[in-house]
Amino acid sequence: MPELRRDALSDTWVIIAPERAGRPQAKKKKAEPPMPHCPFCEGDGAKSNILPYATCAATFDKKGNWVTRILNNKFPALKPSEELTEDDFEHIYHQMGGVGGHEILVESPEHKHYKWSNMPKEQLMTVLKNYQCRYAYWRKDPRIAYLSIFRNHGKVAGASVKHPHSQMIATPLVPPRVEKEMDKMKKHKQKTGKCLICHMAKLEQKVEARIIMENDHFLAFSNFAPRFPYETTIIPKKHQDTIEDITEKEMDSLAEFLSALFKKFDKLLDDPPYNLILHVSPIKMRDLDYFHWHIEIIFILSQPAGFEWGSGIYINSVAPEVAAEKLRKA
Amino acid sequence: MPELRRDALSDTWVIIAPERAGRPQAKKKKAEPPMPHCPFCEGDGAKSNILPYATCAATFDKKGNWVTRILNNKFPALKPSEELTEDDFEHIYHQMGGVGGHEILVESPEHKHYKWSNMPKEQLMTVLKNYQCRYAYWRKDPRIAYLSIFRNHGKVAGASVKHPHSQMIATPLVPPRVEKEMDKMKKHKQKTGKCLICHMAKLEQKVEARIIMENDHFLAFSNFAPRFPYETTIIPKKHQDTIEDITEKEMDSLAEFLSALFKKFDKLLDDPPYNLILHVSPIKMRDLDYFHWHIEIIFILSQPAGFEWGSGIYINSVAPEVAAEKLRKA
Repeated sequence: MPELRRDALSDTWVIIAPERAGRPQAKKKKAEPPMPHCPFCEGDGAKSNILPYATCAATFDKKGNWVTRILNNKFPALKPSEELTEDDFEHIYHQMGGVGGHEILVESPEHKHYKWSNMPKEQLMTVLKNYQCRYAYWRKDPRIAYLSIFRNHGKVAGASVKHPHSQMIATPLVPPRVEKEMDKMKKHKQKTGKCLICHMAKLEQKVEARIIMENDHFLAFSNFAPRFPYETTIIPKKHQDTIEDITEKEMDSLAEFLSALFKKFDKLLDDPPYNLILHVSPIKMRDLDYFHWHIEIIFILSQPAGFEWGSGIYINSVAPEVAAEKLRKA
Repeated sequence: MPELRRDALSDTWVIIAPERAGRPQAKKKKAEPPMPHCPFCEGDGAKSNILPYATCAATFDKKGNWVTRILNNKFPALKPSEELTEDDFEHIYHQMGGVGGHEILVESPEHKHYKWSNMPKEQLMTVLKNYQCRYAYWRKDPRIAYLSIFRNHGKVAGASVKHPHSQMIATPLVPPRVEKEMDKMKKHKQKTGKCLICHMAKLEQKVEARIIMENDHFLAFSNFAPRFPYETTIIPKKHQDTIEDITEKEMDSLAEFLSALFKKFDKLLDDPPYNLILHVSPIKMRDLDYFHWHIEIIFILSQPAGFEWGSGIYINSVAPEVAAEKLRKA
């Protein structure tokens, strides 16, 4: 059974999940055997693993063929269980039972859609609708505080399978990074009366140098203080605290926007490995006037080392103004 | 000129350092040419780069041959400059001039000493003395708040040169991770009257399961909540806030301890890539009763991915109790 533990010095939460050791890329680096077949392609045994409650919008097409499917991760970081447990050892160590969920969204039957720049807009919209559906699903579980939705692309970015897929991890706590963002946004609202991200969008549009792309509904820019080269933030122009609130029209606009943006990334950086992360308000807290949902994309072109891990300060050799200019032109 | 910038949402500090793009491993992955010669071995032009103020203890032996040498990093993250500058844009973005230093300690003339398990004890003591010396040096600079000393070993851990070396980065701010530790230790002292790390050491000795090794003066254990498999903490048993305070006898004991510990790591994990980080009290704050210096070692056997970057929660497939047992037996 996995366990959640908090570090006494850094407050970092850690999931101890021995089950994860079995997944393909966790095994010995040397002499890695080629995967005999893709576990997420049609016809594989993985099909039997489809969650019975995976009745998301557009999971099947009109002919009854699957369009997307949701599976339980075979090597889960967290598992559903009866109730939450919590322990404290001499005010030093803090521990919780590893209650939660770890799901895979297989984004398409088509293996070749693993690049979002290759995925048809309609398919991408179905992926986004599935995200909405999982938030709605996990909201009903009283033990769950947050659902992390993310996409690892490329081996060095942690993708052990190439077939297009996203992952969803439901946790009994609001992740520290989301808590930090909530705190910053709340304080900015109290201090200035403005939503931090709405305010930031205005500033970025005035400065222009870090803007990568925009359409009627969405804006993509290079972060002012990016940890990694080409790190990108996507925000809805309208204030919304979660992606669940976007309309069909906005969804269509976002799918088109992502498709065009990933074409730029692929053109400039040659199908770069990346992690894409959705940041939304915690699922039990709706309509937050200070929280603005966004998508974070980091490219794994370099790795943090001793300085970054020890200090929490990141060294980045590409200024965001340079990154944005190159991406605008790509 | 490098720049320090703070992220508006996460408070993460970032150093924008375009100069870093030139270093060996930052270049295109494909067709990496072999280095014609080691830039840190005897006889190389790097010799001319020795800092004029590098008059650390035991830098030269009795015959006048160098034992260790300190160089300015050819691709510095931060640079010395006249004065600190600071800017704030609409209470959103915060920026400082990239004032500081980035040095390399070449730990030995012998290339083969790149594994600490292969380095003679006397040489390792000289390395530790050099660390002490650099803290003393940077303390005199009024603009500098902290000196990060770390060692990257192995390509995936960020070492672009194999020759044994450590790095030192002097920053005008106390790094967020150190600030967090200070805060945790201070609160624990206020609440319980005890130093958090002294208290933790007692608890670990009682529990036993996470102890890896100990001698008269030092203790190594697997962290209760390790972000990475085999993550290890080394602490002095005596309460000290910085490595500068250790005696000649303790230094000898530490060199012996490190040598034995790295033999274990190499035996169990086959010369694993790692980052080793010194955590000491900020250089302008001496004799802190609540701060306890320590050494952090993380092994780069897996990489954080979307979940870790997005949530700040780490998934680790090796329980520390299992890691410690394996290392004890190695």
